[in-house]
Amino acid sequence: MSGLKSSIKIFESHAPFTLESGDSLPGVQIAYHTYGKPNPDRSNCIWVCHALTANSDVADWWPHTVEKNCFLDPEKYFIVCANIIGSCYGSTGPLFVNPQTGQPWYDRFPKLTIRDIVKAHILLADHLGIKLFASLIGSSVGGFQALEWSVMQPERFRSVVLIATDAYASPWTVAADETQRMAIFADKTYGEQRPDAATDGLAAARAIGMLTYRGASGYNASQQDVDIDNTYLNQPRRAATYQRHQGKKLTQRFDAYSYVTILNAFDTHNIGRGRGDIPQALERLSMPVLVVGITTDIIFTPSEMKRLADMIPFAEYQEIESAFGHDGFLVEHAILNKIITAFFQKNNI
Amino acid sequence: MSGLKSSIKIFESHAPFTLESGDSLPGVQIAYHTYGKPNPDRSNCIWVCHALTANSDVADWWPHTVEKNCFLDPEKYFIVCANIIGSCYGSTGPLFVNPQTGQPWYDRFPKLTIRDIVKAHILLADHLGIKLFASLIGSSVGGFQALEWSVMQPERFRSVVLIATDAYASPWTVAADETQRMAIFADKTYGEQRPDAATDGLAAARAIGMLTYRGASGYNASQQDVDIDNTYLNQPRRAATYQRHQGKKLTQRFDAYSYVTILNAFDTHNIGRGRGDIPQALERLSMPVLVVGITTDIIFTPSEMKRLADMIPFAEYQEIESAFGHDGFLVEHAILNKIITAFFQKNNI
Repeated sequence: MSGLKSSIKIFESHAPFTLESGDSLPGVQIAYHTYGKPNPDRSNCIWVCHALTANSDVADWWPHTVEKNCFLDPEKYFIVCANIIGSCYGSTGPLFVNPQTGQPWYDRFPKLTIRDIVKAHILLADHLGIKLFASLIGSSVGGFQALEWSVMQPERFRSVVLIATDAYASPWTVAADETQRMAIFADKTYGEQRPDAATDGLAAARAIGMLTYRGASGYNASQQDVDIDNTYLNQPRRAATYQRHQGKKLTQRFDAYSYVTILNAFDTHNIGRGRGDIPQALERLSMPVLVVGITTDIIFTPSEMKRLADMIPFAEYQEIESAFGHDGFLVEHAILNKIITAFFQKNNI
Repeated sequence: MSGLKSSIKIFESHAPFTLESGDSLPGVQIAYHTYGKPNPDRSNCIWVCHALTANSDVADWWPHTVEKNCFLDPEKYFIVCANIIGSCYGSTGPLFVNPQTGQPWYDRFPKLTIRDIVKAHILLADHLGIKLFASLIGSSVGGFQALEWSVMQPERFRSVVLIATDAYASPWTVAADETQRMAIFADKTYGEQRPDAATDGLAAARAIGMLTYRGASGYNASQQDVDIDNTYLNQPRRAATYQRHQGKKLTQRFDAYSYVTILNAFDTHNIGRGRGDIPQALERLSMPVLVVGITTDIIFTPSEMKRLADMIPFAEYQEIESAFGHDGFLVEHAILNKIITAFFQKNNI
């Protein structure tokens, strides 16, 4: 997308990795990308947390951000992004072989939480020897990780950027996740021990996700039919074709087992869990935090984003005007660059 | 719900029923309910069009509307509601036997349009001998029917009430329908020649529907978890349980074949099809029209409802403040009663 190439790196930890549930993984592998170079005192490191089905190659999935004069300027910053565990882009996940059985985990992969995912990030950050990050950035479920990490280790980040996210997985987001799981489980091939099980269910789940990512404004802005008289009766409507296309596209790069694993982790997100409540947990944030909402986001609505900012001690709230709903965080990179670089400048990042 | 009992009535037309697609049904059966009595000059008749999975018993699915002093006061009005063809509540649909094969239609039931559904309503209205209706009322896909019918026969209605609906099935609503179909088709039992095929897919489809009916505000208002520390890790979250419950509930009263038939009909809705365009079609409406939007409706958003009202020559727009999203049309009967009875009074209905 932005043209900047970086090759995937692999970090392996062979110590047993204990999960919040009490289960454990026999070690973890973490795939990650870096861009730019750390300066001598390592004060220019930025960690980016990726969203649901993305990978560690930020320059690929977040267009025009890992570029000169952008908020992920590789000439200025050393940028790290790790594929979350549970995913299928190089980090330990359901398609990995369970050494105890010699077979891939598939639907037997242990349940993860957002805190488990962050714990794996911490392993890698320690391995890279980065004690203090200039910033920690996350959008959507990437924001879940960023919030969780900054509450766990507030002293580790000089600033935090939270885009289209929340302090907990709200009932609404959990309902959307459960609906996606229902679609996947309705596909009777789920459970078959092969990586391409339940692809029809996965496609339907993705289509559900797309509805919530784009919302009314997104579809109505981009998927209008032109030839009404013929289209409506004799041909599939454009928005229908789009849904099928988006569903199929995901099945070509993702699997149902990894998808369900990450959805389940999503639903465990609550910054306040075991810490009194959400406001108490957020009080730990001692750094400047930029909270960015999107006007048409129906997953993390502007009013919820404002409420989140209100609960964070040193937060600044900015809103992006966009027709693209939640996906605005990917589409509106130009505005994001403006907002985030201004925030960085103000805070000497 | 409202306590008023009315028994189901059946009308049969044995003439071949030609569909917009060119296909035809060998006659149609229409199930309907009536409440109250027509007065001698039949000037007190109101037709109600029902939404997606409802039936002809308005007093059952629209609580506290078919009651004294409400907008469907049976002491004042003669109220008619017919089950739409394609459905499974007594009118001809996929579970009916195809006389040519001696087997139920199931997934071989011909494709219907909203205009076909209205054409069946017209057969019944003619049979009942009602030339002029005091009002025609529809919410959601019931509003699609009401709009279509009032454009087809504007001289037949002294007033029209359109709640949470639109002049066409927008790309956004089509995307939601296609996603539901994807979930149903992902269930590999779809196509099996039995009424309970693809129930898991149907449950997932219903859960998708619920997301769009309730939206963020609906779920967050009613499905918050209480015991955070235990719930998130060890038990399903409340919103997840709710989705499964709603999905299962529908499978106990509806079938996947009827559901797909009605979704397909939904997507054909465009008042402008074959009539120039939407504004030209709406210019035919010569009666007072009440358009009602709901503040949190994410299917038919307030801004779209306002746009619809703006295109109708004699329209009045009212907005209901509600946290229940699209389902507000069912939940907010008290406000609806106030708004619609005022509209009726003003127009001598």
